[in-house]
Amino acid sequence: MEIIAHIHTGFSEKFGVPRQSGLAETKGYIMFEPEYANPEAVRGLEDFSHIWIIWQFSQVTQKEWSPTVRPPRLGGNKRKGVFATRTPFRPNRIGLSCVELESIQIERGIPILNVIGADMVDGTPIYDIKPYIPYTDSRVNAIAGFAQDEPDKIEVLFSDKVKCDEEFKQTLSEILAQDPRPSYQDDSERIYGMDYDGMNVKFKVCKGVLIVVDVAEIK
Amino acid sequence: MEIIAHIHTGFSEKFGVPRQSGLAETKGYIMFEPEYANPEAVRGLEDFSHIWIIWQFSQVTQKEWSPTVRPPRLGGNKRKGVFATRTPFRPNRIGLSCVELESIQIERGIPILNVIGADMVDGTPIYDIKPYIPYTDSRVNAIAGFAQDEPDKIEVLFSDKVKCDEEFKQTLSEILAQDPRPSYQDDSERIYGMDYDGMNVKFKVCKGVLIVVDVAEIK
Repeated sequence: MEIIAHIHTGFSEKFGVPRQSGLAETKGYIMFEPEYANPEAVRGLEDFSHIWIIWQFSQVTQKEWSPTVRPPRLGGNKRKGVFATRTPFRPNRIGLSCVELESIQIERGIPILNVIGADMVDGTPIYDIKPYIPYTDSRVNAIAGFAQDEPDKIEVLFSDKVKCDEEFKQTLSEILAQDPRPSYQDDSERIYGMDYDGMNVKFKVCKGVLIVVDVAEIK
Repeated sequence: MEIIAHIHTGFSEKFGVPRQSGLAETKGYIMFEPEYANPEAVRGLEDFSHIWIIWQFSQVTQKEWSPTVRPPRLGGNKRKGVFATRTPFRPNRIGLSCVELESIQIERGIPILNVIGADMVDGTPIYDIKPYIPYTDSRVNAIAGFAQDEPDKIEVLFSDKVKCDEEFKQTLSEILAQDPRPSYQDDSERIYGMDYDGMNVKFKVCKGVLIVVDVAEIK
């Protein structure tokens, strides 16, 4: 199994990455490895609005897997089978994400895929890219146990002191509305730090409202 | 990357396998490799109606890949980029299929997943199984270029001489309605043979109607 490409996103670290694709309008771009960086290999892909990315959970370093895991959605205190969840801690560390294909740009003869909604850390290795085909991939009436509905969103407010551009604020709001805190933590005193798109973001959560207290460029 | 399981289907060979999952109500079952054959690893999966299978196109033996392929849907005479199609002839021979999870049966402490709609040859190796989560996986309004709609179905008739049970006939009709012939062939004289579920099926196609002329047990 070879790495064919890498995705670049604003997430330099795992903390804050949405737990599924499409939950926040995060921008990213896919660069192919030299052997696969051929515009012919993506010919016709521009006619598709969405693509599948099959990728490697490269942030997981442990080799062992456990038959059960505790999904963050269930408060981190209920066990489910590893194959009944989308946990990264799987026998083969394969991730599956559907992202919107915004555009394909050819730069100096090399194709770059601009995508929206990726749930991956910057530099994540990719094994395969496939077009999303709704008649076979979209099972709108599927029943999905504990993962039936989108996770509840948390309200996000920005402290008046915070200065940043509106587009960044919008994307950041969508990311933070997912509540990136570990599910077992609820400490209203604690200040959390998260890096996104070259900025360090500090926030706290008090009575179910997430307040961004500082956004500063990473030096 | 390790093989965690294999799927068993009625398709002993590639010819006749539907070109995407869910197009025919074919039955199959997934058996885990000994290391992964633990009921705990699928605990809670029974609450999901559909699962993803990430698998190996094990029927493809050639190692080389070409940047473009000719999808059967386009009559086999138009080239598309390999990443703009679901062709098996990819840099990494990874398949992706959504199937219905009919039931999970535990036999002598070993879990078996009964599934419907697989588009895989009997014995296909599996890398990963994930629950289907509609809020992230189902993009019902996705635009899909040349693969927007389900392929046209062909009418299937059974010759009066053909005797087989109704359930088999029904599944066979769904499989054959996909028109398994190579897209560049249209020879009304030719008799095609296909094996399914231990039976050898002979058919011809005349003026857009597929006629099953014989169904006989494989000896």
